[in-house]
Amino acid sequence: MPVLLIVVDGLSDRPIDGKTPLSVARKPNLDRLAEMGINGIMDTIAPGIRPGSDTSHLALLGYDPYKYYSGRGPIEAAGVGIEIKPGDVAFRANFATVEGEGSIFDKTVVDRRAGRIEDTSELIKALREIELPVELLVERGTGHRAAVVFRGEGLSDRVSDTDPKAVGKKVKRCVPLADDAKAKKTAEIVNEFMQKAHEVLENHPLNRERAEKGLLKANALLLRGAGEMPHVPSFKDKTGLRLCVIAATALIKGVGRVVGADVITPEGATGNKNTNLEAKVKAAINALESYDVVLLHIKATDELGHDGDFEGKKAFIEKLDEKIAPLLDLDFSKTCLILTADHSTPIKVKDHTADPVPVVIVHEDVRRDEVSSFSEFEAYKGGLCRIRGMDLLNIALDLLNIAKKFGA
Amino acid sequence: MPVLLIVVDGLSDRPIDGKTPLSVARKPNLDRLAEMGINGIMDTIAPGIRPGSDTSHLALLGYDPYKYYSGRGPIEAAGVGIEIKPGDVAFRANFATVEGEGSIFDKTVVDRRAGRIEDTSELIKALREIELPVELLVERGTGHRAAVVFRGEGLSDRVSDTDPKAVGKKVKRCVPLADDAKAKKTAEIVNEFMQKAHEVLENHPLNRERAEKGLLKANALLLRGAGEMPHVPSFKDKTGLRLCVIAATALIKGVGRVVGADVITPEGATGNKNTNLEAKVKAAINALESYDVVLLHIKATDELGHDGDFEGKKAFIEKLDEKIAPLLDLDFSKTCLILTADHSTPIKVKDHTADPVPVVIVHEDVRRDEVSSFSEFEAYKGGLCRIRGMDLLNIALDLLNIAKKFGA
Repeated sequence: MPVLLIVVDGLSDRPIDGKTPLSVARKPNLDRLAEMGINGIMDTIAPGIRPGSDTSHLALLGYDPYKYYSGRGPIEAAGVGIEIKPGDVAFRANFATVEGEGSIFDKTVVDRRAGRIEDTSELIKALREIELPVELLVERGTGHRAAVVFRGEGLSDRVSDTDPKAVGKKVKRCVPLADDAKAKKTAEIVNEFMQKAHEVLENHPLNRERAEKGLLKANALLLRGAGEMPHVPSFKDKTGLRLCVIAATALIKGVGRVVGADVITPEGATGNKNTNLEAKVKAAINALESYDVVLLHIKATDELGHDGDFEGKKAFIEKLDEKIAPLLDLDFSKTCLILTADHSTPIKVKDHTADPVPVVIVHEDVRRDEVSSFSEFEAYKGGLCRIRGMDLLNIALDLLNIAKKFGA
Repeated sequence: MPVLLIVVDGLSDRPIDGKTPLSVARKPNLDRLAEMGINGIMDTIAPGIRPGSDTSHLALLGYDPYKYYSGRGPIEAAGVGIEIKPGDVAFRANFATVEGEGSIFDKTVVDRRAGRIEDTSELIKALREIELPVELLVERGTGHRAAVVFRGEGLSDRVSDTDPKAVGKKVKRCVPLADDAKAKKTAEIVNEFMQKAHEVLENHPLNRERAEKGLLKANALLLRGAGEMPHVPSFKDKTGLRLCVIAATALIKGVGRVVGADVITPEGATGNKNTNLEAKVKAAINALESYDVVLLHIKATDELGHDGDFEGKKAFIEKLDEKIAPLLDLDFSKTCLILTADHSTPIKVKDHTADPVPVVIVHEDVRRDEVSSFSEFEAYKGGLCRIRGMDLLNIALDLLNIAKKFGA
C-alpha cells in the first residue's frame, strides 16, 4: 500500500490575462487524476511564506523546516554525495580564478567559475589531501560547483562567506559572526583551508595544462552559505516507512539523503526540460514495489518559470502529461497517488512565490469532489479546501490505514 | 507597491431569517471589489476564538496576540497618547463620584461616570502632581475615561481592579493576584495612588464648582484591567516596512502606537456612524504615497452591531460603500487592497463572535475567482478558502514580491 508523491517543481503560477501555463496546457491525464481524486490548494510551508525547494520538500516529507533547515550548504553537500552528519559544517563552493601577489586573501577574483571548468575530479582529489585540525570532505558538483564540509568538535556555522560574489574583488577572509569560541575556531580553519586549497590548486598539473592552453586556472575555491547539519531523524525512524526519492537535482537528492531516503537518479534524468521522463516514471512504478513512499521530483517546470518562458512551461507540462499516462493504470485500491508542486514559480515573477499549489490525492477511498481539471483556478473548489505541506503525508497515510490512532 | 488594509470593525454577522446587514445592503462597490479580487473567509485569531478588536488587529498586523497581548490597559494608554514602554503597568480608568466618610476604600460609588463629565483636562493635570515611589503617567480619554500608567522597577500586572463595577458598592482595595513581591508592591502603590487621587480630586476647584452647580463631583478615579506592556518589536524592525494606522478609536490607535506605527485621525473622524468617511478615505489614499502598509479602520459597524441595530448597520454599510468609491480607481498593478473585518458583531448577539469574516484581496496578480458579491454567504466560495488573520499580511507581501524566500 504505497504512496507515490509526484512533486512538479514550481508548477503553478500567477495568472497573466487570466491564464497560467497549467490552466491552458492540454493535459488530459492530469485532468483525469483531478477527476478521480480529491482536490485542494496547499501552502507547502504556510500562507504567504515563499518556499525554497529544500524547505518545501522537507515539509512535504513531514519535517518542519523551521526546526530542521539550517541553510542550503548541508543539503547541497548531501546532494552531491557527501555523507553528512549532525554537527558538520557545510559550504557551497565554486572553483574560481584569482590573480595577484601574496596570500589568497590578497588576490582578486578574475572569474567566479574558473572559465566554466567542466571536470574538476582531479582537483577535488588533490584538495582531499589537505591537512587541517578537523576532518575535511570535498565533493564536486556540476561544472565549477563543489561542496566542502568540515567535521570535528566545536564547529559553528556562524561564520562569513569567503566568496566576494563579484569579479574584481578580493577573496574575503572568513570571520566569526558570533562572539563565541566555536565561530572563531571555524573561521580560523576555513581561512587555513582557503590558503592551502589555493596552494594545492595553483600548483596542480591540470592548472598548468589549462594555462598552457590559454584557459583560466581553477586556482581557488570560494565558499558560501555555511550551514550546520542538524540532527534529523531518519524517515524510517520517524515513520517506520521506507522512502525513495527519484530526482536528478542535487538539492532534492540532498533532502532525500538528509532524511535517510534511498535516492535514485534514473539514466537520462537531468533535471532540465530534456530529462528522460519515461525513465523517471518507470523508476517510480518500479520503486512502488519495494518502498512505502516514493517521491518523484520533476524539475523543469521550475526552471522554465525562472526563465519566464510561458510557452516552454506549457509545452513541458503537456509533455509531462503524456509521459505520466502509465500512472493512471496504477491500482488505486492499493496505491495512493499525490500530484502537487513544491511552490509556484510564476512566469511574471521568475522566482518562487507563496501562491498556494494545487494538490490532488487519488485513491479508491477518497471523497471524490466535482473538480475535473488540474489547475490553479479549479483546485481550491475541491474537497481538501486549503491544507499545509506538513499535513499532506499524514493524510495519505491515514487513507492507506497506516496511520496510528491518537488517543482511544 | 503599498498595501491598503481596510478593516471594517464587526462588519459581518450571523443570519436572521437567512439575512445579514451585509448580505442585504446595496453595495455595488464592495461587490465590485469581490469580483476583482480573490475571496475567502478568515479567522482573525483562530476558529471559534472570539476576538477583541485589539487582539484581532494585532493578528492582522502579523503579531501573535497570544504572545504580544497583555490586556487592554497598555493599548488604551497608548491610544490616548501615553508613550508606554515595556514593563509599564497600565490601567483603564474612569472618573467617578464617591460618597461617605474615611479613606477612599470606605466610600461608596454613587456614579461610575461622575455625571458623564466631559472635560477632565484640569483634573488630569492635578493628578499628575501626585508623588509616588514610582513614576506616574495619567492621560484623559473621551468623556469620563482616562488611562493611568505606573512606571518603575519591579511592577506587575497581577493585581486586582479598584473599580467595583457597580453603583452602591464600596471602592475596592487593590490586592495582589500573585504571591510575589512585584504584585504586592504594585498593589500598595495603586492603593496609595487611589487615596492621593481622591484627596486631590475632592479638593479640586473644578469639583467645588460642579458641586455648586448641583453636578456630581468627579472625586475618584476607578482603575481596571491592569496590563504590563510587553516587549513588542516595531513593525518597521519586524518587516522593514512603514506602517500607518488611520483610526479614530483609542483602542485601534493604541494598537498602532504599540507597534510603532504613525497614527492619523483625520478631521471629523469620530469612530461612530456620523464619522467623516470621505476624510478617512482621502487620508488613506494620501497615506499610500508615503507608507508601505496603510490600515484604515472603520468603527461604526461594530457599534451598530453592539446596539443590535440591523437597519442602522445596513444603512451604514451602504454609506460606506458609497464613500469608498474612490478606492476602486487605485492602480491595482501597484497597490494591493484588502477589505475585511476584525471580527463579527452579530445583531442577534450584540457582541463579538468568532464567526469568520469575509476577506477579499484585490491586485492585478491575484488568481481571480468566481465570487462577485461581498458577503458572509459568498466569500467562502473564493480562492483563498479559509485563512487566518496572522497570515493575511504575509499573503499580501508575497503578492507584491516584497516577501523573502525561506530556503533555496
